[in-house]
Amino acid sequence: MTVHKVLIGDEWIESDSTGTFQATNPATRESLPDEYPVSSWAEIDRALGAAAAAARALRGASGETFANFLEAYAKQIEARADALIGMANAETGLPREPRLANGELPRTTNQLRQAAAAAREGSWALPTIDSATGIRSVLEPTGPVIVFGPNNFPFAFNGISGGDFAAAVAAGNPVIAKGHSSHPGTTRIFAEAALEASKAAGMPAGFVQLIYRTSHADGAKMVADHRVFGVGYTGARRTGLVLKEAADKAGTPIYLELSSVNPVFMLEGALTERGDAIADEFAGSCLMGTGQFCTNPGVVVVPKGEAGETLLAAAKARFEAAASGVMLGEGVQKNFVAGVEELVSAGAEVVLGGAAAEADGFCCQNTLLRVDGDAFLENSEALQTEAFGNGSMFVFADGPEQMAAIAECLEGNLTGCIYSHTADDDDAAYDIVAPALRNRVGRLLNDKMPTGVAVSAAMNHGGPFPATGHPGFTAVGIPGSIRRFTMLSCYDNVREHRLPASLRDKNPTGSLWRSIDGAFTQADVG
Amino acid sequence: MTVHKVLIGDEWIESDSTGTFQATNPATRESLPDEYPVSSWAEIDRALGAAAAAARALRGASGETFANFLEAYAKQIEARADALIGMANAETGLPREPRLANGELPRTTNQLRQAAAAAREGSWALPTIDSATGIRSVLEPTGPVIVFGPNNFPFAFNGISGGDFAAAVAAGNPVIAKGHSSHPGTTRIFAEAALEASKAAGMPAGFVQLIYRTSHADGAKMVADHRVFGVGYTGARRTGLVLKEAADKAGTPIYLELSSVNPVFMLEGALTERGDAIADEFAGSCLMGTGQFCTNPGVVVVPKGEAGETLLAAAKARFEAAASGVMLGEGVQKNFVAGVEELVSAGAEVVLGGAAAEADGFCCQNTLLRVDGDAFLENSEALQTEAFGNGSMFVFADGPEQMAAIAECLEGNLTGCIYSHTADDDDAAYDIVAPALRNRVGRLLNDKMPTGVAVSAAMNHGGPFPATGHPGFTAVGIPGSIRRFTMLSCYDNVREHRLPASLRDKNPTGSLWRSIDGAFTQADVG
Repeated sequence: MTVHKVLIGDEWIESDSTGTFQATNPATRESLPDEYPVSSWAEIDRALGAAAAAARALRGASGETFANFLEAYAKQIEARADALIGMANAETGLPREPRLANGELPRTTNQLRQAAAAAREGSWALPTIDSATGIRSVLEPTGPVIVFGPNNFPFAFNGISGGDFAAAVAAGNPVIAKGHSSHPGTTRIFAEAALEASKAAGMPAGFVQLIYRTSHADGAKMVADHRVFGVGYTGARRTGLVLKEAADKAGTPIYLELSSVNPVFMLEGALTERGDAIADEFAGSCLMGTGQFCTNPGVVVVPKGEAGETLLAAAKARFEAAASGVMLGEGVQKNFVAGVEELVSAGAEVVLGGAAAEADGFCCQNTLLRVDGDAFLENSEALQTEAFGNGSMFVFADGPEQMAAIAECLEGNLTGCIYSHTADDDDAAYDIVAPALRNRVGRLLNDKMPTGVAVSAAMNHGGPFPATGHPGFTAVGIPGSIRRFTMLSCYDNVREHRLPASLRDKNPTGSLWRSIDGAFTQADVG
Repeated sequence: MTVHKVLIGDEWIESDSTGTFQATNPATRESLPDEYPVSSWAEIDRALGAAAAAARALRGASGETFANFLEAYAKQIEARADALIGMANAETGLPREPRLANGELPRTTNQLRQAAAAAREGSWALPTIDSATGIRSVLEPTGPVIVFGPNNFPFAFNGISGGDFAAAVAAGNPVIAKGHSSHPGTTRIFAEAALEASKAAGMPAGFVQLIYRTSHADGAKMVADHRVFGVGYTGARRTGLVLKEAADKAGTPIYLELSSVNPVFMLEGALTERGDAIADEFAGSCLMGTGQFCTNPGVVVVPKGEAGETLLAAAKARFEAAASGVMLGEGVQKNFVAGVEELVSAGAEVVLGGAAAEADGFCCQNTLLRVDGDAFLENSEALQTEAFGNGSMFVFADGPEQMAAIAECLEGNLTGCIYSHTADDDDAAYDIVAPALRNRVGRLLNDKMPTGVAVSAAMNHGGPFPATGHPGFTAVGIPGSIRRFTMLSCYDNVREHRLPASLRDKNPTGSLWRSIDGAFTQADVG
């Protein structure tokens, strides 16, 4: 058995590894045959050096350069669609169809092409011109970025193909991808596609590199290295906080997506009006992908009494009737059970499930918990433990004021939903709950489950800590996601011919949006 | 002698102090009579509670609300101009005219009024509408912000009146100001003005509060408190890094301005063409305000040989002829001498000055150092020690390539300047140096000293770490500075009447700039 190579510079090289690992097929619990290396620091150092050299080589490169790469890459991915879908299915247990083939793969190439379009068009960089003072500024690339992908989206959030990768490249930065250990084969196929696209587009060596795994200490050392200027991380909170501490100490911007229970508030009128339809929506959202979405609805706040009890009963019936899906791995299964146990020891009661399921693969029973609103308020920190998977906890609140009190004590979340009567029956309650919920969540929804995350310019897939590391930025949605991996570059009295094209008097394309003397325009200066 | 009160809630209350302190007149070295308290944690806790209550009371408040306060405050400041100028002169040694009366005070009220105009107009918040998906987003206030002001701008960067204060308020947040210990009396007068404006504008209690001093431990505890959602800090690097660590751990955005040596690169042609004029510019910039600007030119990179030597000689003559100004305090004086000593022990040679000056006040000799480019490259970290005050170090570089190498090894800085021949004589050298300098500095200047920081929408008073804590944001310049104290609030499928006015179909003013379906416009949706 040979160990797979790592992509350093623009070559696949034998790893100077300190160990190896294999992925596991979560549907069968069997180890997959391929071995992947744990990279040594010497190897990481080499990748960092190559990335720094690539950043130097790319100084002043146009958006067109990065757009060409991103589009070539999307094509290379499509050419490897079957291999990617097969490998990801084996490594993650996610179904080939519709999830991988019809959902996540097109989403991934779509993201890359949207990023390409934004890179070419340039308005994402907010060029700003003050003609009276001769001061001009624009967002520019910072230098090498490291992207750590999570386990739950092997394509759309993969460190070498997902949203953070697309954003960092569109901004003009080289990327070192740290693949997730649960799907190294999928990541390898992407890297092969990326390397071919990079060469075809004439990118410098070191523009895209791949490391499968490092020691924890080397991971922290890597993000704190002086050649790194940005980090994207999606994954477990504990690991993320270790990386955040290292990056923060080095003064390097790090964007993390750590955890979220995505509270859903059900107002009385909505349940009276359409409780059954809402139960359908909830069960579909919560069990989709075996609940392994960052935006899975993990806490449902309902009114005490009949309406809330009826919804829970209806959800229970649907959860009982649904199969228990395969989880992404043994760790996810164990963490889910541990999360449920923590919630129970904090005062929640199991309504359904709560344990590992008897199955060939790593599965847990579809799970529902319940807790009283007073009990939640008394022990709110522990009762916000995330049980990542196919489960949710109902909180029975004593009226809108208690719902608002619950909202006030929430940690930062990616999303928060409020379901209300289609007419104005719930408007008074909404006006009590929504203001309390607003600054606890990045995205506030009405009458809609949170699991769909549209790739939209107006999206916020982000939120206050600990959902993410900074509440001002989104990980999904172009152009916003691109701005994370940039710096504000100001030009003061710099001569016209030395300015980047986006800041010269003449609009370089005639369609670039710029803020000139306080007004947005596509016109030239003056 | 009574101890001055602190402003908590909307009352001046006797401090539950753990000690007191007095300011010193740096021009006479005499203690000023007034005593100010070191606040206890109980008092800080009370301020945090009041700020949180103010934030709740302000939910959904319009930009007009904050604009009215800011404008009322600017008027209240003008009504107290004489008192402020007199007190600041006594506490900082900065001259009444032109600095305080004609420079800094009008700059301060101008900033407050610009912030008011931006708050009222609203485009700073980047409202973004995706009409196809029903997703809309806008930047919104986060909640209470703490602002720590520095010693060197008692008005324009004061925690209760400066740029960070104006930005945090324009964004819609309550502010707890931590005054700088060197000018408590100035800060107190501002707080009196702010309280009167706050009451006149109908702001809730706790909207603006003032604490003069805390223990180091309580300062860190305060920024990490769960009721704090943003921090602005300008000041010494060591203290700033302690606060940064505390805020980072709590996941609270903190914006810091820590230190900068503001390198200036002099290309050969510029010196040959207009060396004398450049020496005038340099000496004026470096000695202005006794060199106590964040953007003071602390490192000047010149070509080895006659042109560089001539500039240094010309600068020396001007430095010798100029009086040694009064520094802001004994600490600044001591730190300057210590900084010079560190540079000397790292290999620099004193050309002029380098020691404390004989004077009534806290003064240092106008100082010039020199070091060879090779020596700088060998020991670049120590040779970037900031000696904050009326001095600068010349680095003699062996051609443009070595200048670029020097630029490459610079820490992050606020500014970097390149002087070149007015025709194209230096263009080849510029093209070698500028790309290396670009991502090491927030603001790149041509043929201009860095000390002027215009309040412009295109300004970047910021830069890569350790100049600041995040390279994407500016501390000076509206609207950019406002965006630091906000979160991205997304509305997904939220009903029209529940949206903030800036996101409804109808443009609320007809002049608000919004990004609708990828184009900036002042039109309505649809």
